[in-house]
Amino acid sequence: MEKQKTTNIILFSGDYDKAMAAYIIANGAAAYDHKVTIFHTFWGLNALRKDEALKTEKGFLEKMFGKMMPRGADKMGISKMNFAGIGPKLIKKVIKKHNALTLPQLIEMAQEQEIKLVACTMTMDLLGLKQEELLDNIELAGVAAYLADAEDGNVNLFI
Amino acid sequence: MEKQKTTNIILFSGDYDKAMAAYIIANGAAAYDHKVTIFHTFWGLNALRKDEALKTEKGFLEKMFGKMMPRGADKMGISKMNFAGIGPKLIKKVIKKHNALTLPQLIEMAQEQEIKLVACTMTMDLLGLKQEELLDNIELAGVAAYLADAEDGNVNLFI
Amino acid sequence: MEKQKTTNIILFSGDYDKAMAAYIIANGAAAYDHKVTIFHTFWGLNALRKDEALKTEKGFLEKMFGKMMPRGADKMGISKMNFAGIGPKLIKKVIKKHNALTLPQLIEMAQEQEIKLVACTMTMDLLGLKQEELLDNIELAGVAAYLADAEDGNVNLFI
Repeated sequence: MEKQKTTNIILFSGDYDKAMAAYIIANGAAAYDHKVTIFHTFWGLNALRKDEALKTEKGFLEKMFGKMMPRGADKMGISKMNFAGIGPKLIKKVIKKHNALTLPQLIEMAQEQEIKLVACTMTMDLLGLKQEELLDNIELAGVAAYLADAEDGNVNLFI
Repeated sequence: MEKQKTTNIILFSGDYDKAMAAYIIANGAAAYDHKVTIFHTFWGLNALRKDEALKTEKGFLEKMFGKMMPRGADKMGISKMNFAGIGPKLIKKVIKKHNALTLPQLIEMAQEQEIKLVACTMTMDLLGLKQEELLDNIELAGVAAYLADAEDGNVNLFI
Repeated sequence: MEKQKTTNIILFSGDYDKAMAAYIIANGAAAYDHKVTIFHTFWGLNALRKDEALKTEKGFLEKMFGKMMPRGADKMGISKMNFAGIGPKLIKKVIKKHNALTLPQLIEMAQEQEIKLVACTMTMDLLGLKQEELLDNIELAGVAAYLADAEDGNVNLFI
């Protein structure tokens, strides 16, 4: 029996367009029966944030990061032509017009396809994010867990 | 007989310097007899645009994207020190001074080395790009085709 | 006997946070007995610069690049929320508060773990950087050496 292929994506970027690319590749790979993991680190964690603000115990710096960073996929900017926030609106318009999926829809599809969504514990600690601020069914893990998955991976990408 | 090695690059970025890096690695891998594919998606598609404007049937949003995005490799900005467009000029000066290859030359070399240059159909649809706006000999394909190449790849990179 | 696994990272980015991610993955992989190489190209070379200015023979363009680019890991900006230089200070404060490692410390650890740190000769030539401007124990090599390492690599990333 052939070994199941795997795709392991590190999502470092907090850009809407880059996160879309990550989730499109991930959903594609899952459709082709890959075991797929997206390891969210640094700004990539923003894609997993719930969009409401939660009362949590935080220090000043962590509160500030929490405020400045976008709460959830729908609030992220884009890497090019952001134009003070108009760019993402245009992209979303174009996505709807062409019946493509928005980032929140791509994330939902990933969860339905049982793609493993991981939040980097070190980043959560540094930026002061708490598990209850993230979507449900997110695993917490560190670089060791990523490497254990990726070292036998077929498609390993840093996005 | 040993299996031919393969290098599969996703070029997501529309930055001149990142596209240069992609094409330098690709041309290097082809010289070492790898089967090489560059899959151009999102802003990376700009590297494949012809530099003249073509009359095409487009909706308003697509026309706008078409106007705002650089037409071809020679018009792309750089990821650092762009300085309102002076950066790319400096880079090109430095390239010429050191007899290195510019991005358009690297793309031409890639085509001569029979590197497979692919344009992502989903992005073309979203941004309203038409095949006649791209250089010749570009294949159109989607994420499934990328995954088929990359899942047995030796060097897979997202740039 | 099992073959030693390898991790090969191309560090293209000159951002503090992206370089941190590269060095955290690299140090993790070395701890898991991978043979690890970080190939520094384009702006990624800035992480390897000594922080003092050295008198070197350079042309005008190269001098300008030398002046404009950050001298060493501690002077690099971040990819998001740079806020005219305040961002990196905040990040470093948060790192200290949580007893995490700064980028210069991560680079030192990489050298102690015998991670191979490579500077791209083509970039050094283009940007006019001299070996004496870099940290000690940096190898100089080109894309061919990178490909020789990466084509049998387990974890290949472009950062």
